[in-house]
Amino acid sequence: MTKLLLSFLLLSTHVMAQQEDSLFIRSIADEILVSGKAYENLRVLCKTVGGRLAGSPQTAKAESWGMNTLQQAGADRVYLQECTVPHWERGGKDVAWIQYTDEKGKSVTANLDVLALGNSLGTGKQGVKAPVILINNFDELEKRKDEVKGKIVFYNYPFNPRYVVTMRAYGESGLYRRSGPSRAAKYGAVAVMIRSMSESTDNNPHTGSTSYDSAYPKIPCAAMGLRDADKLSQLLQGNKTITGYLKTGGHFLPDTIAHNVIGEWRGTEKPDEIITVGGHLDSWDPAEGAHDDGAGCVHSIEVLRVLKQLGYKPRHTIRVVLFANEENGARGGMKYAEEAKQKAEKHLFALESDDGGFTPRGFGVTIAPDKLQKMRGWLPLLIPYGVYEFSAGGGGTDIGPLGRTLQTPLAGLSPDTQRYFDVHHARNDVFENVNKRELELGAVNITALIYLVDKYGL
Amino acid sequence: MTKLLLSFLLLSTHVMAQQEDSLFIRSIADEILVSGKAYENLRVLCKTVGGRLAGSPQTAKAESWGMNTLQQAGADRVYLQECTVPHWERGGKDVAWIQYTDEKGKSVTANLDVLALGNSLGTGKQGVKAPVILINNFDELEKRKDEVKGKIVFYNYPFNPRYVVTMRAYGESGLYRRSGPSRAAKYGAVAVMIRSMSESTDNNPHTGSTSYDSAYPKIPCAAMGLRDADKLSQLLQGNKTITGYLKTGGHFLPDTIAHNVIGEWRGTEKPDEIITVGGHLDSWDPAEGAHDDGAGCVHSIEVLRVLKQLGYKPRHTIRVVLFANEENGARGGMKYAEEAKQKAEKHLFALESDDGGFTPRGFGVTIAPDKLQKMRGWLPLLIPYGVYEFSAGGGGTDIGPLGRTLQTPLAGLSPDTQRYFDVHHARNDVFENVNKRELELGAVNITALIYLVDKYGL
Repeated sequence: MTKLLLSFLLLSTHVMAQQEDSLFIRSIADEILVSGKAYENLRVLCKTVGGRLAGSPQTAKAESWGMNTLQQAGADRVYLQECTVPHWERGGKDVAWIQYTDEKGKSVTANLDVLALGNSLGTGKQGVKAPVILINNFDELEKRKDEVKGKIVFYNYPFNPRYVVTMRAYGESGLYRRSGPSRAAKYGAVAVMIRSMSESTDNNPHTGSTSYDSAYPKIPCAAMGLRDADKLSQLLQGNKTITGYLKTGGHFLPDTIAHNVIGEWRGTEKPDEIITVGGHLDSWDPAEGAHDDGAGCVHSIEVLRVLKQLGYKPRHTIRVVLFANEENGARGGMKYAEEAKQKAEKHLFALESDDGGFTPRGFGVTIAPDKLQKMRGWLPLLIPYGVYEFSAGGGGTDIGPLGRTLQTPLAGLSPDTQRYFDVHHARNDVFENVNKRELELGAVNITALIYLVDKYGL
Repeated sequence: MTKLLLSFLLLSTHVMAQQEDSLFIRSIADEILVSGKAYENLRVLCKTVGGRLAGSPQTAKAESWGMNTLQQAGADRVYLQECTVPHWERGGKDVAWIQYTDEKGKSVTANLDVLALGNSLGTGKQGVKAPVILINNFDELEKRKDEVKGKIVFYNYPFNPRYVVTMRAYGESGLYRRSGPSRAAKYGAVAVMIRSMSESTDNNPHTGSTSYDSAYPKIPCAAMGLRDADKLSQLLQGNKTITGYLKTGGHFLPDTIAHNVIGEWRGTEKPDEIITVGGHLDSWDPAEGAHDDGAGCVHSIEVLRVLKQLGYKPRHTIRVVLFANEENGARGGMKYAEEAKQKAEKHLFALESDDGGFTPRGFGVTIAPDKLQKMRGWLPLLIPYGVYEFSAGGGGTDIGPLGRTLQTPLAGLSPDTQRYFDVHHARNDVFENVNKRELELGAVNITALIYLVDKYGL
């Protein structure tokens, strides 16, 4: 009887706790959906700062926006964590065209809409003019390596539409952006153009970092929009001889200083144990970095603002971190982990939002299986707000080093992925392409998860 | 031992069937995501036909588009089912403004962006000019009924942002559009203006049907955009005396003829048992009816095209129905059920897509609980494509009569609802606001579900 009674009491306590959590998460959602600040904060970041690549004049403006916004959100302490960042500049408008003879024997020149890849080196003022060779994938590159010398390699590796989770297509085609230029340079290519990593129906080119292998010449490289890529590949498949021209101005200035912007809210019970929630403050230059990753920044700031507004007392210290330089160096994330290690900080959990401000569907979590199981027990509390799964594996570029260095459990918000690569690293990643409610629901679920982790531990 | 062996064999068969289904659904997805026709079909409907309210000249064009597209999709037989439909016309541009005296004593005139409600009667050429009274909800209307006479009632009932599923907010605020005009007319109001049923950040007005109570004068009524509604309510809360003006031209012509467009694919085993999948072909006049409900039409056509393309042999007869006149009469759906009853047809299942071409999240199903349980057993097959729930209750306006008349089990696709009311019945419900992949994933899940229902029955 006593045992039964105890079980009953424990069960009652569990049910009551669940009800309390359910009510509290409802109050989180109400605050965000009715009086949320994420959307307005994002508007200010996008419209008053705009694109903010590490080292650009906008970097300091963005940091100052971050400090102000975190202060207004109610952080106990807002501070900057300095880090050295690369300073790459586009160096003017990227230009490309192709020239060929059409069916009627007429010479045709057609412009391509291109963006130089981040971290790439420019062509010089004269640009590069050379025959274009179509290479569909690395296997083909190896087979045709003897034909590449002196040419512009055009990688037309498609963004696989079969994958329902578009990140998977990005994972595959991203190789061509990252290592394609050096692999072509190895065989004597003079420049590289790639098909943008996207499935959009427009012709916007999508930039993003490339990474040179120092063993080979650092040849210029640019991405083109999908319509141009389709057209060019059709022409080349028809065995047309095509001359390509590319002029880009990418170059590095000396490394410079940027900062992680950190808003801290001291824990009441275990102030030495830290929960990190963040996004990255930098963005590519041609757009406003609205989804990538203004959304993650305002999501994270909203966690602090809302829990504070609701009178919550965090057990652990909650740190909102707006990371520097994710896009072309990831130095902010490395610095954060490095300093955490130096100071022997205890990190309970870190969550990143860097997959855009779309409707949330789940979280990806890198954590021990038994703890993942525990987290899955929270799902009934999140399902009403659209999150229905904790999948194994996840985190983010900026919190990755924390996981590797301190074995901190990591999570990443998994929003719906269908529209992400329509805007990712492209000029249409602007505030107008973020939906207010989709953005807000991301903040609701992140705030709820941070609350649960803080309350119950891991 | 024999029993164990039998269990094992049954289990093996089950596992093999699941594998077979999984592979077949993968081939459905591949066909749609790689070579799908839904998006292009939608473009043609939106751009060559456009808005297509029952009775409008576009009705016949849309029907002819439907017949051609169903034929191309491979229907055995395409035919029209005639029905009588109301013929309401907007009768020109709707105009509204307000006039008041500002803080400095200056007279201000401000235009409002309005759309007359569907089925509403116009003001006449002179328009209606009268003091505006702010009424926040029906309770307030009852309390202030003596103040309403001779005035323009402005219902400012908000679209509740707390609801995560926006359809719920529409369910509540929709009452003001449907019965608000007559309830105000009962107390002598001369016209009604309503806050649009939306949470968008723009100022587009959202139309939709109203329904007069014949006991009261049929007063003119229109919806205004949210920015205008906020501004007007602020002015009125500040006790400003405001004169409003409304000019609308809505009127009915005699009832006319429209058609359900039906594409039939005869079943191989049980041709007399029918599975219906459909959307509605009509749309409001000011836009292209892209999400509402071009998406549902092209989703449904894709089911037939894809299953045929993959060499599937349906056990039951599959009927794709593009229903007439959902928006302001629902006569197409009624006719379909009426004729099904007259002909004593057996209807196994009916599915409607009428909540837009957004990423699918589930299906709402109206069916006996044990059968719902059976359907939930199929979820593992759909989860990879984004559908993770079969919720109890669901269907659609057009298939509703079939459920009521023949007790046919009904289902409705439940896409993500966050952006639906940004475009619903507004001028921005255009092709450009439909995302190709989101639309396609709807078709994938609907096709998969029709396949499972056809194969396993209910």
